[in-house]
Amino acid sequence: MDEGRMSTIAEELSKELKAISVSEFFERNRHLLGYDNPTKALLTIVKEGVDNSLDACEEARILPKIWVEIRQKDATRFKIMMKDNGPGVPDKKIPYVFGKLLYGSRFHRLLQTRGQQGLGIKGCVLYAQLTTGKPTTVISSTGDGKTSYYEIMINVARNEPEIIKHEIINDGKVWHGLKIEMEVEGRYVEGPRSVLEYLRQSAIMNPHAHIIFRGPNGKVEFPRAINQLPPKPREIKPHPHGVELGVLKRMLEFTRSKTLLGFLMNEFSRVGKDSAMKVLKKAGLDANRDPRSLELREVEKLFKAMQLVDFVRPPTDCLSPVGEKALLEGMKKELPAEFFAAVTRKPEVYRGMPFQVEVGVAYGGNLPNEAKLMRFANRVPLLYQAGDCAITKAVIATDWTRYGLKQNAKSMPEGPIVILVHFASVWVPFISEGKQAIASYPIIMKEIKLGLQEVGRRLARYLAGKRRIELKRRKIQIFERYIPEVARALAELTEVKQEIIEKKLKEIGIKKVGDVGEEFIHELSQHEGVEGEKNE
Amino acid sequence: MDEGRMSTIAEELSKELKAISVSEFFERNRHLLGYDNPTKALLTIVKEGVDNSLDACEEARILPKIWVEIRQKDATRFKIMMKDNGPGVPDKKIPYVFGKLLYGSRFHRLLQTRGQQGLGIKGCVLYAQLTTGKPTTVISSTGDGKTSYYEIMINVARNEPEIIKHEIINDGKVWHGLKIEMEVEGRYVEGPRSVLEYLRQSAIMNPHAHIIFRGPNGKVEFPRAINQLPPKPREIKPHPHGVELGVLKRMLEFTRSKTLLGFLMNEFSRVGKDSAMKVLKKAGLDANRDPRSLELREVEKLFKAMQLVDFVRPPTDCLSPVGEKALLEGMKKELPAEFFAAVTRKPEVYRGMPFQVEVGVAYGGNLPNEAKLMRFANRVPLLYQAGDCAITKAVIATDWTRYGLKQNAKSMPEGPIVILVHFASVWVPFISEGKQAIASYPIIMKEIKLGLQEVGRRLARYLAGKRRIELKRRKIQIFERYIPEVARALAELTEVKQEIIEKKLKEIGIKKVGDVGEEFIHELSQHEGVEGEKNE
Repeated sequence: MDEGRMSTIAEELSKELKAISVSEFFERNRHLLGYDNPTKALLTIVKEGVDNSLDACEEARILPKIWVEIRQKDATRFKIMMKDNGPGVPDKKIPYVFGKLLYGSRFHRLLQTRGQQGLGIKGCVLYAQLTTGKPTTVISSTGDGKTSYYEIMINVARNEPEIIKHEIINDGKVWHGLKIEMEVEGRYVEGPRSVLEYLRQSAIMNPHAHIIFRGPNGKVEFPRAINQLPPKPREIKPHPHGVELGVLKRMLEFTRSKTLLGFLMNEFSRVGKDSAMKVLKKAGLDANRDPRSLELREVEKLFKAMQLVDFVRPPTDCLSPVGEKALLEGMKKELPAEFFAAVTRKPEVYRGMPFQVEVGVAYGGNLPNEAKLMRFANRVPLLYQAGDCAITKAVIATDWTRYGLKQNAKSMPEGPIVILVHFASVWVPFISEGKQAIASYPIIMKEIKLGLQEVGRRLARYLAGKRRIELKRRKIQIFERYIPEVARALAELTEVKQEIIEKKLKEIGIKKVGDVGEEFIHELSQHEGVEGEKNE
Repeated sequence: MDEGRMSTIAEELSKELKAISVSEFFERNRHLLGYDNPTKALLTIVKEGVDNSLDACEEARILPKIWVEIRQKDATRFKIMMKDNGPGVPDKKIPYVFGKLLYGSRFHRLLQTRGQQGLGIKGCVLYAQLTTGKPTTVISSTGDGKTSYYEIMINVARNEPEIIKHEIINDGKVWHGLKIEMEVEGRYVEGPRSVLEYLRQSAIMNPHAHIIFRGPNGKVEFPRAINQLPPKPREIKPHPHGVELGVLKRMLEFTRSKTLLGFLMNEFSRVGKDSAMKVLKKAGLDANRDPRSLELREVEKLFKAMQLVDFVRPPTDCLSPVGEKALLEGMKKELPAEFFAAVTRKPEVYRGMPFQVEVGVAYGGNLPNEAKLMRFANRVPLLYQAGDCAITKAVIATDWTRYGLKQNAKSMPEGPIVILVHFASVWVPFISEGKQAIASYPIIMKEIKLGLQEVGRRLARYLAGKRRIELKRRKIQIFERYIPEVARALAELTEVKQEIIEKKLKEIGIKKVGDVGEEFIHELSQHEGVEGEKNE
């Protein structure tokens, strides 16, 4: 091989090298954002819009009211409109919020929110322009009497917003909120992985939200069940057991602290002076060292020492569980069952990240005679990848026969039951970008199983009570059937009138039934979990 | 709610909005790049390095020789070294090729290559610095007597390379190639999803490559089996049935063509004047219109018309299949089987994208008595997500009992068999970013099944032949066992010496065996596929 020629070839081959914009990357790899197929595309768009609205309303402490409308334009085209009563987006920010990928406010914060990466709603705009060539319309006001009107596209080559139209309507109309309209290729279905199912499950897990949906098959309304917003989650600093070496190195470079001691105490949660000194001693580093002066070798020592020291668990007020009461309200308004139970577990920690599990169960009544599992992460329904999810694995690993249900090995239990599991965390460990399945960390599996067992036991007591009263009722029926016979025999023996004896005997029967009924109602209220043990 | 206050809240909430660099995004979501866990991380790094080396060598028309070394430093730390004899990377380009995500040469080209997105090797650098804080060392020469030495990290906040050290060694040593060294957290295993298995399968599918691996458990060498490079794939233009509306719109804006007719003929493959005029007529557009002058409404008409017109299939010299002969060589050198067959199907098209399927089968000999499936996309082994892949689905949907194998419904066939399926395309439709499973388009499933059936039939003929010769051999054995007896009886009857009769009888037997053997060898050579029907 001629080596001089090789040099030319290398130059030639590298000539075509150039940067690719992140928009181009996601346009081509749109399945990463949930646009694998036309059915999922519609679901993804509604999900991104509704999740954003719920997040914005909660941050602004507004009880959310959300309108979603899907209109079919032709066989494969749909117009989607979404509107909320949230805080709105300031005029100048709108182009970036909707037209620039990887632009957002939550990426660097450890905070329990639905959205995170600054991709979601931009993905919708990108998908709309890719499939129909049309801009997305954004209308918003922040309550200052002005309304912003935008038509936005994304300049894919530069990952910058392209403003097709912009007007400020200064008509003095005072409102706040956000309205989005887009036209996309899609397919509308109603079933287990549909827009409607997504909204129904969202309504259960967000009983403080009022959602109005108008779809191709008519209007469905999910009314608000409670008038109280979930507690506002607090942002936390990283836990010393939850950072990686490379991140620690970067934190040391950018800290404002002047000393290592200050760095450890200021930049991490749960590091007091004592534990910081313990870390520094183990690492053999001086407490007064400038954090920026550490060599890689020393950063490694610091990193290892941090893993060796025990710290208090991370604070858990960064979590915002739904709560047992609200979860019961949510289930009751959407599920036609006869029995409900809910459990909120105590917060736990995986890899330095706080998390909390909530489990609900609805049984009997007019529920279809087929078990159903609803999975949620930070109140967002997960409709795909069920088989890979820690929640599914925990449910089928639970022995439901103990709680009076039929179950085949490694399967869902049988019968008219809905099981809900909610995983809340500042960082949900999804197994892939699709954000549809939670990774099976042992501590996460354990917490889910304990929650399932707890509602399982309550369900078992209810089912046992139900069987007991059924048995008694049947005994009384048999008793009543023989009353005339017995009464006649007694009448002959005692010479008391048969009618009187029959009446007395019936009274005994009714009293029995009454007793059983009261006992039953008492048990029911206990099982509902409202007065059950709470984990606070 | 006080509307004035709301305006302030909206401002407050949007204050934290900021851009996230693509490096930060992938650092946090590193599972998108294949770094889900320490075992997979090692595999991903070797895969990215080897794939790049193979691509570079093929582009530069060099027979690849690749060294991979993994050294364990402590329980969880590994040093990885990869070296090739490729064209090398010019000094000035090295920082970008290794230190800037979404920077590459192949993203915009429709060309059959292993890498595509400009993410792979940068992901390795990112993972190394995240887990060990250390830079990646890159040493390269393009054959001009100068050697570049770099230590590179990625500035995550800006997605720009950070050069820790740079030297040009001007010692006149003339070589070309690339050497990378990095230190990472990982876990080394040997099994079905390991570095070793990845290299073995790569060696089968790239018999023109010489790969030398030195791992924690010793050295394994995969020698070169053929001295011919695969044909150089040609870059193609998009097929009119393979673009989306949004992309068409952008193409119209950026084209250099002055007329719509020119645009259609120049920017697409397989659009001649006749078919272009047909499209324009259906769309009701003038052939001389300036492409940039089209309104969205007109772009839509053009798009629809393009779907309605039939075009010649896309050209297929953009594809570079391994070929039946090379595939047989690859299998023979790595698999201890007794029978081999290989089929290269004719190119086909999905959504305007040309693709080609190749199927190989190895059977018997010293293969373990458990069926194994090897999946490949553009010659790269796919080790994860088998269940979701079109290849797996096609294999278990094939009725292998027809071909003389045992098989339970919806399972792999049973027995000592290795099945290989290679999917080659300018754009592999992976179902997710993990790039481990191919989407089940009907035409893709069909092609794979047809390929499987073809090797299946050859295997069936071989197995039938094997059974036949087995039967004959057994008959001859029985015959030979009775020779002394028969000879003695004949000797008595004919008064010929018993020894002579025995000798004659044995000759008959040997002749029989010989015949069967020749017949068998003849069948074998036919079944090998070397002389079988080729699809060219």
